[in-house]
Amino acid sequence: MKLEHIKRNMMQMGQNVESALDSAIKALAQRKIEGFKAVHEIEKNINQFHIQLDDECLSFLAMHGPVAKDLRLIFSIIKINADLERMGDQAVNIAYTGKDYMGRLPITLPAEIEEMSHIVQKMVRDSLDSFVREDLALAQEVLLLDNKVDVRRTQVFKNLMQLIRQQPENVEAAMDIILIARNLERVGDHATNIAEDVIFIGTGKDIRHGGQKV
Amino acid sequence: MKLEHIKRNMMQMGQNVESALDSAIKALAQRKIEGFKAVHEIEKNINQFHIQLDDECLSFLAMHGPVAKDLRLIFSIIKINADLERMGDQAVNIAYTGKDYMGRLPITLPAEIEEMSHIVQKMVRDSLDSFVREDLALAQEVLLLDNKVDVRRTQVFKNLMQLIRQQPENVEAAMDIILIARNLERVGDHATNIAEDVIFIGTGKDIRHGGQKV
Repeated sequence: MKLEHIKRNMMQMGQNVESALDSAIKALAQRKIEGFKAVHEIEKNINQFHIQLDDECLSFLAMHGPVAKDLRLIFSIIKINADLERMGDQAVNIAYTGKDYMGRLPITLPAEIEEMSHIVQKMVRDSLDSFVREDLALAQEVLLLDNKVDVRRTQVFKNLMQLIRQQPENVEAAMDIILIARNLERVGDHATNIAEDVIFIGTGKDIRHGGQKV
Repeated sequence: MKLEHIKRNMMQMGQNVESALDSAIKALAQRKIEGFKAVHEIEKNINQFHIQLDDECLSFLAMHGPVAKDLRLIFSIIKINADLERMGDQAVNIAYTGKDYMGRLPITLPAEIEEMSHIVQKMVRDSLDSFVREDLALAQEVLLLDNKVDVRRTQVFKNLMQLIRQQPENVEAAMDIILIARNLERVGDHATNIAEDVIFIGTGKDIRHGGQKV
């Protein structure tokens, strides 16, 4: 088991996560329920990668006893694996909630949800790209995007509370959108974790919880 | 750095998480806003443990190149560390939302929230106890509790949707409770992850995603 092989598997898992997210978001935006089914299929792959990747990291540690940067890399892949798996869970949550949403009296999907989707997808893509290219500047950019997601999530909440007051009969549909906004926000949080791990691999510096900046 | 020392630090971090959760839940149930402040103080400790514990695990791997059960233990502590930190985040989320909730026209705290709190606190305690005692039967019990949490969360959602339809002026307070129910559910999910790790440490079997049962 070589390190390159493990990295490649992690990236493949990441691509599956991107596909799951893309299917969920497109199905929601285009109101095409079939797209949600694809998410559940892709999640099966993600779960297989999740178990396989942990197993490979464990074998690598046992056989090679890596140190320095190789150790930081494996250590980070263990954590990134967990983040990717949870991103997959969030895509599945969006699929479930999105299906409920389409079964109800429709309310317009807020523009902020589409904006959040774009930003979050960029965060996921860039965090994975920054890993593969060891691009610390790109990883830093991912961290800066998180705030843009939070601003939109807050706006979605505020607007939908208003809507519910005026149209309480649409509470379920509004709640669906609120939950989806939270799911997207959490995907962004996981991408942020990955970007922090990339910075750690490259520099050995732990910048979480307001620690040292690169 | 000895393995026993790392385990002790992890358990201390776990105790901090239990305290944070307990403060948040009591403050909410007793409507005492000061309890929420304590949560923020405790979270600072949790974040310190989070960084320190990762650092200790990395040093241990580099210096000792553990194999077999010791490797599974360190590997699992890396993951448990992330779960504990996120439980701390959930306690903080409850504190923020709980503070908002108390500033609004009061609606009665649903009985299910108190029930969920009790179950989730038991899950956290038992998952940590199962780790320290290497008690696989107790870890299995934690897994079984998760469903009880989900049932109550679904009920809270249903009841509060109903309430919002009837009293749309209380939508914010109702939404606060819904978010708190989600936070509690997620704490339960993290306790489940820890219980799965305990089973993995003891048996080498990965039971996630419907894998082999013990």
